[in-house]
Amino acid sequence: MLEDKNTQKTSLAELGEFGLINHITQYFKVQNPSTIKAVGDDAAVLDASDKQTLVTTDLLIEGVHFDLSYMPLKHLGYKAVMVNLSDVYAMNGVAEQITVSIAVSNRFPLEAIEELYSGIQLACESYNVDLVGGDTTSSTKGILISVTAIGKAEKEDVVYRDGAKETDLIVVSGDLGAAYLGLQVLEREKQVFKVDPNNQPDLDNYTYLIQRQLKPEARKDIPGLLKEMEVKPTSMIDISDGLSSELFHICTQSKVGCKIYEDKLPLDPQVISACEEFELDSTMVALSGGEDYELLFTVPIADFDKIKGNPHFSIIGHVTAENQGLNLVTRASQEIALKAQGWNALKEEQ
Amino acid sequence: MLEDKNTQKTSLAELGEFGLINHITQYFKVQNPSTIKAVGDDAAVLDASDKQTLVTTDLLIEGVHFDLSYMPLKHLGYKAVMVNLSDVYAMNGVAEQITVSIAVSNRFPLEAIEELYSGIQLACESYNVDLVGGDTTSSTKGILISVTAIGKAEKEDVVYRDGAKETDLIVVSGDLGAAYLGLQVLEREKQVFKVDPNNQPDLDNYTYLIQRQLKPEARKDIPGLLKEMEVKPTSMIDISDGLSSELFHICTQSKVGCKIYEDKLPLDPQVISACEEFELDSTMVALSGGEDYELLFTVPIADFDKIKGNPHFSIIGHVTAENQGLNLVTRASQEIALKAQGWNALKEEQ
Repeated sequence: MLEDKNTQKTSLAELGEFGLINHITQYFKVQNPSTIKAVGDDAAVLDASDKQTLVTTDLLIEGVHFDLSYMPLKHLGYKAVMVNLSDVYAMNGVAEQITVSIAVSNRFPLEAIEELYSGIQLACESYNVDLVGGDTTSSTKGILISVTAIGKAEKEDVVYRDGAKETDLIVVSGDLGAAYLGLQVLEREKQVFKVDPNNQPDLDNYTYLIQRQLKPEARKDIPGLLKEMEVKPTSMIDISDGLSSELFHICTQSKVGCKIYEDKLPLDPQVISACEEFELDSTMVALSGGEDYELLFTVPIADFDKIKGNPHFSIIGHVTAENQGLNLVTRASQEIALKAQGWNALKEEQ
Repeated sequence: MLEDKNTQKTSLAELGEFGLINHITQYFKVQNPSTIKAVGDDAAVLDASDKQTLVTTDLLIEGVHFDLSYMPLKHLGYKAVMVNLSDVYAMNGVAEQITVSIAVSNRFPLEAIEELYSGIQLACESYNVDLVGGDTTSSTKGILISVTAIGKAEKEDVVYRDGAKETDLIVVSGDLGAAYLGLQVLEREKQVFKVDPNNQPDLDNYTYLIQRQLKPEARKDIPGLLKEMEVKPTSMIDISDGLSSELFHICTQSKVGCKIYEDKLPLDPQVISACEEFELDSTMVALSGGEDYELLFTVPIADFDKIKGNPHFSIIGHVTAENQGLNLVTRASQEIALKAQGWNALKEEQ
């Protein structure tokens, strides 16, 4: 973030596609025994296994999903990987490989692509994942990044969205709403900067929020932790579009309703103070903020003792009959119907 | 191609992302027993297998890889799948699943996306491949499509690029150069149309060329055919960037040279006549045209009798020592050094 990006500029056309691929993949080391052949052939080759394979993909586009005026390319690379790994963990699996395709317009020199890939590499190293393929091409506008993640899980460990049962407890990992508020802080600073480019922002009160927006961490630890605790969720999903939206997915696919409690929603102190400052309702932010990349899951009520008191988890409610719908019980003990107000990429552009 | 695309327009924002996903995936049926869970969860789940997994991905971008003024969306969808399946077949494997991510600007109504997916669906049905995931989002400009294909092969059947040995025969499937000439014909018609929109193009003499450009077929049949013939290639690659460029990949990775013969290059009669008309050298077109999606492979010389006379294959030369380089023997028996003049997406924009 602090490096001077203007020292050297190498044009991508000079290198050519294969030169670029060689250049950016030379620092990636294979870490998983299941990766037989990574980059460099028509397809990657992954070893046979008696486990099931998990495959997920996400596409991030400049101007739609991120703004390079406050998203450093290294963070973008890191986040693009996290977004995908999170989906593998939400199946209760272990992520092992990724492919990364990028398209860049000619306003980006090689050094920018190196920064992007240094973030991808950091994510690969930290999460024990191998880069096994991809495509690099030019775009007519901006930058986009398409990542596919591949993971493994024992057949009996895979957790789908459709297994939630009445009376199950509803649990979330970590806390909610911080990434959304981080975005609000960054957007505000961008506006301030436009008016006064010499203004030095003081972001000390927002470090956690900004980190959650710019450098989210996927919950790699949760599948292992659940196994240790001998808890198998009945359903699980990652929180990318916001808690409400994810609850709708689980309830719709499981054919159940749910009741969650406002006073149980896990909020970081910075979320609470930033909500006051921005005059936002912290419950709304927790429900609809999105990009938390925490895991939302349901467990049989018999597992209550295993979950309660664990600092990673908050029990926020329970599963009800389908005809009761999805409801939030407010601090004033009022019951109100939840709405899926997740982020909708297709509406953003309107 | 002939339907009236202007009858109905449904805005994507009306449907929303999840509505769109449901809408476009409803017609896709799972065909492979290894597809346990396709679209609809955080990740697709594929069954355990004692085979190796093959993974490959490609990104196609409007204005870089295709021009919608002559590429119908249905064909684009079909071709985007072919490009990826071709890579799986080039590993001597069987393709079983794909993920498809698209980004579209709001100039595209739902009906356009349906057309795109109808091409993807046709490809899935014809090639026995399951759509198991993807991402749909908006773009700030144009349309792009990112496909990842997943395949399987017995460990001992997988063919890499690095196994070619001196004296091996060099073989190509099908014929070369037609897709490139198809593009020239379409580009010419586009220019004619600009000048005189009422001109009715007579494309009868170019049907094969245009088909190879707009609706290429990946060589799904080759891995099975080779197995039947009891031939295991020592190296293999698909011809996407042009024969020269692919020969460079095989020779570089195998640390060998090669000698190919101009008079052995397989050319369709339409390629020969179109080259005359466009005043292009047919050998250059065959070497550097690209987008043929045929397979290029090497086999031990002992397999000569198995390959010769098979209408699917042409023996175009043989592998030499590395220090001899890559050479073309012309019809006049002159030897000239080959250049890798494949298509370079990163240079296109210059």
